[in-house]
Amino acid sequence: MRDLLTGPSGLGTSAARLGRPEAVALPAEPGYAERPWGDGTAPPLYVPVLEREDAVLAAAVDERLVAWAGECGFEEPERFLGGMFGRLAVLTHVDTDDVDQLLIAAKLNAAWWAADDLYADSTEMGAIPAELPPRLALAMAAMDPVAPAAEFTVELEETLAADPVLVGLRSGIAHLTSRSTATVVQRVCYSTFAMFVSWGAYAAWRHTGNYPPAWQYLATRQHDTFYTSMTLIDAVGGYELPAPLYYDPRVRQLLTAAGTAAVMVNDLVSVEKDAADEQPVCNMVLQIAADRECSIAEATARTVELHNQLVRDFEAGHRALLAVPSVELHRFLKGTKAWMGGGFEWHTTHPRYR
Amino acid sequence: MRDLLTGPSGLGTSAARLGRPEAVALPAEPGYAERPWGDGTAPPLYVPVLEREDAVLAAAVDERLVAWAGECGFEEPERFLGGMFGRLAVLTHVDTDDVDQLLIAAKLNAAWWAADDLYADSTEMGAIPAELPPRLALAMAAMDPVAPAAEFTVELEETLAADPVLVGLRSGIAHLTSRSTATVVQRVCYSTFAMFVSWGAYAAWRHTGNYPPAWQYLATRQHDTFYTSMTLIDAVGGYELPAPLYYDPRVRQLLTAAGTAAVMVNDLVSVEKDAADEQPVCNMVLQIAADRECSIAEATARTVELHNQLVRDFEAGHRALLAVPSVELHRFLKGTKAWMGGGFEWHTTHPRYR
Repeated sequence: MRDLLTGPSGLGTSAARLGRPEAVALPAEPGYAERPWGDGTAPPLYVPVLEREDAVLAAAVDERLVAWAGECGFEEPERFLGGMFGRLAVLTHVDTDDVDQLLIAAKLNAAWWAADDLYADSTEMGAIPAELPPRLALAMAAMDPVAPAAEFTVELEETLAADPVLVGLRSGIAHLTSRSTATVVQRVCYSTFAMFVSWGAYAAWRHTGNYPPAWQYLATRQHDTFYTSMTLIDAVGGYELPAPLYYDPRVRQLLTAAGTAAVMVNDLVSVEKDAADEQPVCNMVLQIAADRECSIAEATARTVELHNQLVRDFEAGHRALLAVPSVELHRFLKGTKAWMGGGFEWHTTHPRYR
Repeated sequence: MRDLLTGPSGLGTSAARLGRPEAVALPAEPGYAERPWGDGTAPPLYVPVLEREDAVLAAAVDERLVAWAGECGFEEPERFLGGMFGRLAVLTHVDTDDVDQLLIAAKLNAAWWAADDLYADSTEMGAIPAELPPRLALAMAAMDPVAPAAEFTVELEETLAADPVLVGLRSGIAHLTSRSTATVVQRVCYSTFAMFVSWGAYAAWRHTGNYPPAWQYLATRQHDTFYTSMTLIDAVGGYELPAPLYYDPRVRQLLTAAGTAAVMVNDLVSVEKDAADEQPVCNMVLQIAADRECSIAEATARTVELHNQLVRDFEAGHRALLAVPSVELHRFLKGTKAWMGGGFEWHTTHPRYR
């Protein structure tokens, strides 16, 4: 009712209401392209162009990240991290070259990935479906402290200090807290917890062997996307998109379109790896192929088409929201676009997905 | 770093810093009491006194609520609701007598309880542990719409429209949306999703039969408390506690203390019901008794003591935060205190818990 963007007659009409001349329609944002990927046989992905590649900066972030992962208790941190997250931060957060700022993204993405691999996804790395939900509840406790409760909190703290994943999540949030606001920290925690609900659903499907139809997988996947990584865009950039704008339904719809598009790239490049797990990982391509009894190539083409539509929806919505007079909003949406471009580059060039 | 309440030398020192005389320490808020409960054999609970009981207003809310539940598709809505939620709203949200405002709380609490009973808790009512997580993911989709995704969204919408729990959750959020801001709506959704992560953990424990120690149950329970019901306090009251204050760590710690205290009352009055389920429901008293191999009476006494400490922590923190010059914060904390008083009254007098 009192949302900032919801006027009585829609976006971009304030000039008309005030008697000023209508603004000229803005041209499309430049910087999108159709890019080939994989072995080149699938249709191209429509994505924002890459805005920055900087191996030296990525190495500087990774050096700090490896030291941090060792302090968290991860064994062989260099091998474990695989040089993934410094480059991810540098490719996706292009409006800062400050290593401490980039480490906000590098640490939290590393911790999320560690939780996903070790708790949820990889049978080989120790993920057990029935043990996932209690582990995720402890992850909430690590990230989002609540009121102390006497001897029970003492026992909790001992457990939180003994698991590198939990130490990493807590430490990543502490780093964010030192460089952002409580509102952003809670935004990041809560987006993570929504992701955890989806992880629970995947685990149940793998545990029972009753895999879902594609629509149900996608509905679940849409709360487990790179939207969560994108919650860090303003914090890494050193500003804050205020909550009333961040949570405005039109902004949120754009950000979830961007997050879903970026995570469809992840599904597309993970098909072989996901299908090969002894308990196959849910994946949009695999669920479509199962539903429609079609080939992987056909299911891939449908997933690419869905991805491209989401990116075009983002592109159009981004253009419309430029009418809102907020420098933070403009910068956040520009950052979201850059994130998608960097995310595509990272997924389509990283050895993990080859 | 930029949190509103975090000055360089702590709360309540701004007057001193500005050269003004130190404020006189405020007296304790009146209105707490030790109250007997149950059959009177357990130690009394220290709680805020009840601020309002109004059977006529509760009946007016319930009349509207029953009609709404019927529209959502619940069978025998009158019996299903059992006259619980109108009275709960009237007892806990004492700063309005507007039925439409009270319906924000009545509808959402009814929908949360329905999800908990039908999906999570009650084997008799159809709850199946392995089916819970996918159902919770659909509940997220019902409450928190994301970017549309072509034919997959069409199939999702058909499912969302066919399950009374999902219709109720969506409709409850729609009612909230019509009377509050996007920031509050997302706060409510996200607190619900954290609760869902905890529900997943309980389901896993019941499914495997490996019940957790009390500290682990409590850590999980602390993200599944009446904190979620309390997210509605300002919306029902017709104002908004802005996000930077709402999410300030000191405020959040107080609100989680209040939420945990209120939910310990729920555990205390539910012991017999929870123990009687063919797959026992996790409960603080039962977990303490199992850990310590002690009697239910002893475990009850420890739980009461924990509850009372949380209420005293809230009381002290509430007093300290009166130094923050925000009328919304003062009103929200007063509302939180009232919620605890009403929650105790409701739990200790309702037939469900006898």
